[in-house]
Amino acid sequence: MEEDILYHFSLSTKTHNLPEMFGDTKFVCVGGSANRMKAFARFMHRQLNLPGLPEDIKDICEGTDRYCMYKVGPVLSISHGMGVPSISIMLHELIKLLYHAQCCDVVLFRLGTSGGVGLAPGTVVVTDKAVDYAFRPQFEQVVLGKVVTRSTELDEGVANELLKCSDELQTFPTVIGNTMCTDDFYEGQGRLDGALCSFSHEEKLEYLRKAYEAGVRNIEMESAVFAAMCRACGVKAAVVCVALLNRFEGDQVTSSHDVLVEYQQRPQVLVSHFIKKRLGLIP
Amino acid sequence: MEEDILYHFSLSTKTHNLPEMFGDTKFVCVGGSANRMKAFARFMHRQLNLPGLPEDIKDICEGTDRYCMYKVGPVLSISHGMGVPSISIMLHELIKLLYHAQCCDVVLFRLGTSGGVGLAPGTVVVTDKAVDYAFRPQFEQVVLGKVVTRSTELDEGVANELLKCSDELQTFPTVIGNTMCTDDFYEGQGRLDGALCSFSHEEKLEYLRKAYEAGVRNIEMESAVFAAMCRACGVKAAVVCVALLNRFEGDQVTSSHDVLVEYQQRPQVLVSHFIKKRLGLIP
Repeated sequence: MEEDILYHFSLSTKTHNLPEMFGDTKFVCVGGSANRMKAFARFMHRQLNLPGLPEDIKDICEGTDRYCMYKVGPVLSISHGMGVPSISIMLHELIKLLYHAQCCDVVLFRLGTSGGVGLAPGTVVVTDKAVDYAFRPQFEQVVLGKVVTRSTELDEGVANELLKCSDELQTFPTVIGNTMCTDDFYEGQGRLDGALCSFSHEEKLEYLRKAYEAGVRNIEMESAVFAAMCRACGVKAAVVCVALLNRFEGDQVTSSHDVLVEYQQRPQVLVSHFIKKRLGLIP
Repeated sequence: MEEDILYHFSLSTKTHNLPEMFGDTKFVCVGGSANRMKAFARFMHRQLNLPGLPEDIKDICEGTDRYCMYKVGPVLSISHGMGVPSISIMLHELIKLLYHAQCCDVVLFRLGTSGGVGLAPGTVVVTDKAVDYAFRPQFEQVVLGKVVTRSTELDEGVANELLKCSDELQTFPTVIGNTMCTDDFYEGQGRLDGALCSFSHEEKLEYLRKAYEAGVRNIEMESAVFAAMCRACGVKAAVVCVALLNRFEGDQVTSSHDVLVEYQQRPQVLVSHFIKKRLGLIP
């Protein structure tokens, strides 16, 4: 192609010098909320002792409101919205961006929030395998009207390294477990409080018990395509999500704003520790 | 429930007087982009000659960055992000909001952008049926690990009324056709320019030809669950999307920024005309 327009980033190979802008990227961290990924970029700026003010970091995708993107040293922080389709558009354009910028040995992290399955709120889950609604470690991708099944296994080495980081930090509980990825927040996750609900409290608990038995420790909405695309493209990747509630106890997110803010920082603190170790900033 | 927390709107039945805030709502317009739905709210403010400045309209969901929401007279304008999961969360919480606020006879519109199938760029498509990747008018919803199939037929009366509005306006072409809803922008829509692509240009064209023969006139990523949920909840609804390109001609969105901005206003102009007629502001 003469020109590649990364439409949802509002970037293009003709109008932007992608190797100059992104060539030194080593870590890409993505998460659903634009505000959270901006906060993470500022946090990493301070953690890496970079010159300039964290508040001055600019949104590289300011030409669009689909995603936001910040670069702090070798770290790229990008928002992806909610759900598999939204993150999949971002991943296609990110992987093309990294290719055009000639980046190599990049590690990709999804930092997210999730519903815990049998875990205390605030526990961080590093995903072993992303599984579907039937607890299978696979992602079904439609290609020209045909369903293609892709594996959703994540990098075991990165996951274990993250668990070791948590042991060193000793500030919050972290576990490795399977993450169930669903296409909605209510019926697909067995919530009783949606606009539509056709099942009982007991049926919900039975489904969650089956999930727990299959090794599921949290539920979110992006890990399957994230794992499948990273694997298909040969990119090492990890999913790190905090559990905001224990789904055996309820459906609504009732913790106070301050508690939720602190919980959401936990995956950031963990991945920041990983990055600083990899960069040799801490032993 | 004692309290219903509409988590992704940052609203709750305990902290907000929903009947007072939303009780007079008659039209709800939703679209992917937050900026576009803010622009639509300001546009409607001017169209309805409401008191105050359009620039002073406040985001009702300012406590979160998941969605934004504006109210102008009887019109609610809400962003829903990209893809079925993202709009489905919004619809669950919107339908609960309308219920708590005791709204009745509300008409729901999705105003969006799409890829045209055999249409000139700029053509507006009012959806007859939302169809899946195999051109079936159905949406597959997972409920507690089981797949439930729901109909995606939209309200015929509202669609015909919108077509009549376009005839009166005489400013851009509008057609009624089927809309294919996919879960990604690249492989699922037969684009050759994604990070992953396993098919040829000829195979892509063959798939698009089959879609055209099945009555598909545009492709987007939200209509199926929008149609299915509105139908299941008894809400009259329409999908109005402009085609930004003709997919037989290419995959990338290459039109200039100004042309794209004008195209994106077309569904807004059409639905505004519909609303003003329903309110008796124009004959």
